[in-house]
Amino acid sequence: MKQNIDSNIKTIVSALNALREQKPLVVNMSNYVGMNNTANALLALGASPIMAHSRDEMAEMLSFSGALVVNIGTLDSTWIKRMLFAVEQANIHKKPVVLDPVGCGASSLRTATSRQIAAAANKLIIRGNASEIIALAGEKAQSKGVDSLDSSAAALGAARYLRDTYQCAVVISGATDFIVTSDGQTQLDNGHEMMPYVTAMGCTLSALTGAFAAVGEETGLAAAAVLGVAGEIAAEQSKGPGSLQLNLLDALYQLDEATLIQRLKIS
Amino acid sequence: MKQNIDSNIKTIVSALNALREQKPLVVNMSNYVGMNNTANALLALGASPIMAHSRDEMAEMLSFSGALVVNIGTLDSTWIKRMLFAVEQANIHKKPVVLDPVGCGASSLRTATSRQIAAAANKLIIRGNASEIIALAGEKAQSKGVDSLDSSAAALGAARYLRDTYQCAVVISGATDFIVTSDGQTQLDNGHEMMPYVTAMGCTLSALTGAFAAVGEETGLAAAAVLGVAGEIAAEQSKGPGSLQLNLLDALYQLDEATLIQRLKIS
Amino acid sequence: MKQNIDSNIKTIVSALNALREQKPLVVNMSNYVGMNNTANALLALGASPIMAHSRDEMAEMLSFSGALVVNIGTLDSTWIKRMLFAVEQANIHKKPVVLDPVGCGASSLRTATSRQIAAAANKLIIRGNASEIIALAGEKAQSKGVDSLDSSAAALGAARYLRDTYQCAVVISGATDFIVTSDGQTQLDNGHEMMPYVTAMGCTLSALTGAFAAVGEETGLAAAAVLGVAGEIAAEQSKGPGSLQLNLLDALYQLDEATLIQRLKIS
Repeated sequence: MKQNIDSNIKTIVSALNALREQKPLVVNMSNYVGMNNTANALLALGASPIMAHSRDEMAEMLSFSGALVVNIGTLDSTWIKRMLFAVEQANIHKKPVVLDPVGCGASSLRTATSRQIAAAANKLIIRGNASEIIALAGEKAQSKGVDSLDSSAAALGAARYLRDTYQCAVVISGATDFIVTSDGQTQLDNGHEMMPYVTAMGCTLSALTGAFAAVGEETGLAAAAVLGVAGEIAAEQSKGPGSLQLNLLDALYQLDEATLIQRLKIS
Repeated sequence: MKQNIDSNIKTIVSALNALREQKPLVVNMSNYVGMNNTANALLALGASPIMAHSRDEMAEMLSFSGALVVNIGTLDSTWIKRMLFAVEQANIHKKPVVLDPVGCGASSLRTATSRQIAAAANKLIIRGNASEIIALAGEKAQSKGVDSLDSSAAALGAARYLRDTYQCAVVISGATDFIVTSDGQTQLDNGHEMMPYVTAMGCTLSALTGAFAAVGEETGLAAAAVLGVAGEIAAEQSKGPGSLQLNLLDALYQLDEATLIQRLKIS
Repeated sequence: MKQNIDSNIKTIVSALNALREQKPLVVNMSNYVGMNNTANALLALGASPIMAHSRDEMAEMLSFSGALVVNIGTLDSTWIKRMLFAVEQANIHKKPVVLDPVGCGASSLRTATSRQIAAAANKLIIRGNASEIIALAGEKAQSKGVDSLDSSAAALGAARYLRDTYQCAVVISGATDFIVTSDGQTQLDNGHEMMPYVTAMGCTLSALTGAFAAVGEETGLAAAAVLGVAGEIAAEQSKGPGSLQLNLLDALYQLDEATLIQRLKIS
């Protein structure tokens, strides 16, 4: 147990160092609401965001980028086709794909699209809140809108089902985060209760997951750890979600190995 | 007079409490510029934003949401069709519609589209600045771009015309806000002169108007009161519009009944 | 030399005063990531942003606005057509066009589109980072994604080539900014190394360039000077890119003539 935790901490720290050294390019097909937040979070941590969606450049973009993040937050028929095309290109170039199934369960369009993308990607990480993960797996979720009404633990069965079905890693984010992989599951208890009051926090986690995947950490663990710790530091200095949003970017920028290790609540 | 004011204050406070208790889902078809701000303001106050625009999910989204906010800030022919479809769905599900006629008067497309949406919605609240309200009513406005060049009071006649024509409530926002309903008009003198230097402040008011409409306050009064007071608190702590933007979210998050009542300038 | 510098400082200060007096309307066809930042920066400095992209209103918008900013950050086939239409309208109304060739060189779509727009505009200013300017000129750039890997000085030859080819002013932004015009070149050494960690900083410079062009300063010099100085002031007060983003808006809002003159590093 202790050994596993130590190995996880080592993975996280190495991944952060690799990210800052390599400054990986991450292609984001994200939603209109959170694009700014995700680009800023990637920059603040040390990665390099590309926001692109046109089919006419996606093949090129994925040939030299490290990962693709597909976020369905403001999907429509045009973007869905482009997302599937982008996933094809990611497969051709053997790049990892992070799927953020925003609002999965809130409409059948979102559920169906999330499943299409999950089925299409060869190297896949799914990052969602409990309601989204449960809905994606086809269980009856309490989803209402894009916020989760279920606790992370309630989605563990669904996450395992998704892992087995799509041969992927699954991150359930919430008050507690779970990373479910073929090696088992890891639990993270960082973060702060004020974080859900800032929009696009989940999108940010998905984007960071893409950045870490681009440097070889393809489970979402390092991203959840880093965002949890940075969010916690930021929230402690914040009077509300406005301050939190900016303090988070500062905390991602400043985050060092020692602070990360000291604050990690991993099990 | 005093009685009316007391009744208005009671309405505002009850609406705020109801909003925080019910955490209503608000569907936003907003513009690319302000989506992030409006989502964050809804979250900070205690509501739950859904940003959606695809026709393939709008019926579902409006079946379980509390209100629809239609903001034409970055309209085009595709979005206009979707907005009208969304209004139809809101009508079917008897949900209130908030129209934000951004830049009405600045182009004939914006004026015509605003009128189409106003005519289509069954339960309607219109929220605009003076120039937009005047242009929407067909009077000769001094509109230039999306900022208002007219004072709120200059738009009162236009607001009454719109109220009678569309059987709706009308909010004229500006240095002074007016809420014009079939019961007459209410004046609010909260807010701060720095607020127009932050983009999407009007969009934010429209989004909050939708959240309050979702819990039964269908005039825009509570939203204007809450944003005016929170904006005023935020501006007092701000060196400029950057700080104001984040302090506003903090102030919406922290706003309590006592502060609200104490600061309200209502007549 | 000294005379040139004095004349440049005079130009910058007069342009800032003119901008705040005239509050010019600037039409922005920008990308989804940075629209909010650019609108806020324009407002904070004292200009008036219009974000529009529909062909059905572009002719009207450009008839009464002062400048057009075209930013290809999240381009696709629909937006490219609209951008070219908007440039035509700007030409008809004799309005200056600022081209921001985001990611030029990162895909052939971006390179080709940037050249089409540059060739189409009659009164043109190009604002890009070194990699984008080099790629636009057709030299072999080290472009990787949307961030520059080349130093500003390395792009001077390319900038001169673009100036001669398109009869335009060219701004190379980076740690050092160069403004290349038919009168020669000006160098600015303001700014701060933390600025590239905030997304849409280049987009912001392009937007401000449009605002200054709308009041007659059609080289990009005043915009680069103002953003450099404001960014420097903001960074000195910031713990990271989150704070920087908001402090920048405050600094643009507060920037006065004396501070601007005192801080300018021009040669």
